[in-house]
Amino acid sequence: AHGPRNMVDYGRFLALLASALLAGFVSVVLSLVWVFHYREGLSWDGGAAEFNWHPVLAITGFVFIQGIAIIVYRLPWTWKCSKLLMKFIHAGLNTIAMILVIVSMVAVFEYHNAKNIPNMYSLHSWIGLAAVIFYSLQLFLGFAVFLLPFAPVYLRAVLMPIHVYSGLTIFATVIATALMGITEKLIFSLRNPAYSASPPEATLVNCLGLLLVVFGSLILWMASRPHWKRPLEEHTKVLRPIGETHEGTEVESTMTNSSNADKSDLRINTEAARKQNLKFDEAGQRSTM
Amino acid sequence: AHGPRNMVDYGRFLALLASALLAGFVSVVLSLVWVFHYREGLSWDGGAAEFNWHPVLAITGFVFIQGIAIIVYRLPWTWKCSKLLMKFIHAGLNTIAMILVIVSMVAVFEYHNAKNIPNMYSLHSWIGLAAVIFYSLQLFLGFAVFLLPFAPVYLRAVLMPIHVYSGLTIFATVIATALMGITEKLIFSLRNPAYSASPPEATLVNCLGLLLVVFGSLILWMASRPHWKRPLEEHTKVLRPIGETHEGTEVESTMTNSSNADKSDLRINTEAARKQNLKFDEAGQRSTM
Repeated sequence: AHGPRNMVDYGRFLALLASALLAGFVSVVLSLVWVFHYREGLSWDGGAAEFNWHPVLAITGFVFIQGIAIIVYRLPWTWKCSKLLMKFIHAGLNTIAMILVIVSMVAVFEYHNAKNIPNMYSLHSWIGLAAVIFYSLQLFLGFAVFLLPFAPVYLRAVLMPIHVYSGLTIFATVIATALMGITEKLIFSLRNPAYSASPPEATLVNCLGLLLVVFGSLILWMASRPHWKRPLEEHTKVLRPIGETHEGTEVESTMTNSSNADKSDLRINTEAARKQNLKFDEAGQRSTM
Repeated sequence: AHGPRNMVDYGRFLALLASALLAGFVSVVLSLVWVFHYREGLSWDGGAAEFNWHPVLAITGFVFIQGIAIIVYRLPWTWKCSKLLMKFIHAGLNTIAMILVIVSMVAVFEYHNAKNIPNMYSLHSWIGLAAVIFYSLQLFLGFAVFLLPFAPVYLRAVLMPIHVYSGLTIFATVIATALMGITEKLIFSLRNPAYSASPPEATLVNCLGLLLVVFGSLILWMASRPHWKRPLEEHTKVLRPIGETHEGTEVESTMTNSSNADKSDLRINTEAARKQNLKFDEAGQRSTM
């Protein structure tokens, strides 16, 4: 009875993943069409073509790559890989995103300075900078607590729900920031015909904005379905002929099953949760946030 | 051992609730300061003062009241009330929000038409209209499935995770839409000094935008903590001397504990979940999304 349901569920996951990848990929393509077909293209000359790196890199790094980094633990074919490897991939993708975002910000500041346009006056810039600051904090703390082997189980269990919530909230805020940026740029750059006359560029970039919302919604759906979580290491072990290190195992099961239980109950709850997982279906019993 | 922790947890919930109410209330106040101190005030004359109803009502209804509607089940002092009453309050608040949003949209369309400004050209209007359409669908489906007594337990269990996800995603999208609207309005209405010169109005309204993000983040945190969920009816019953109708009870426990389990397992899982809840602490064992 479980087989077919899991297959259906697996198919559903793949369909959503394909949709998300398509939405993200097309978003990046549309940002390139925007800057190459309607704007000044890309270069690093202090002019408009330098500014254009900003939307392209922000959408590629801060939206698309960050979105993939969020759901990388959910890919079923990675469940046979060690958790540590997946953490490296998660951290690596987020680091790449961070680098692209920093470059995209440098492009804007240089462009503004060259053109004597003030920096940091708009709501887009305020919320965008806040998102970048929180994102780098998240990256640093995630690295220190979950990747390095020093943090105690206790601390990991307390911080994991906060890490997940912060990650998803920053991601949503980044998409909101992109929408504000699109709004600003279309108003400023469309003259004769203006934005309000709906020239083709306006329609194209509005569609890009809609697509970013679709991408974000798909990522948030996939990230928040408890039954699509990476199974606990204990389960995975059964499928593996050769034993692997179980670094972080205890924490993962604890924090996914009862993130806010008494600290002293951690081990007991983990035990009980494991039984529960064996008794019921593996799916649907653990929560991400 | 449970008492003190629950008291600490209760205090934490109250602190967050107070912060959210403050952020939401100050947002509404700032929108009023904006339109009365810096803009043309409020009236219904086809002019700028009619437009001004748009930000005020959208922030009041679509952000503040919708936010409260989302967390209304979480208020611990309502747990002694029947679930049906709470559903009426949840639906009622969302209906009030819907009405305010419709009025706020009428204000913009009338203003645009009076001034010969095109409608529906901006990304703000596209995503805003999409949010209103999804919000009304959500309201209608929520009413038909969860409030009216006709929908089978099976259907409620399947639709509840989607209802929760859609609600939170629409709420986040509405805040993103408000941020785009603020961006548009500041660019269009600030001339001499322009938005880029950061006059006091720009700073005030940027702060309003930041506050909307803070409000949204607080609501999403409160709504997504599993241990702050309204307890299952079975638990509440113990505290009540007089029995009440248990309409929807079976569904609630099922969907919160194993929303994606086999339909045939619904009752079994509910039983098991109940035991689990008695054995562990009540908190932390159920997931919203």
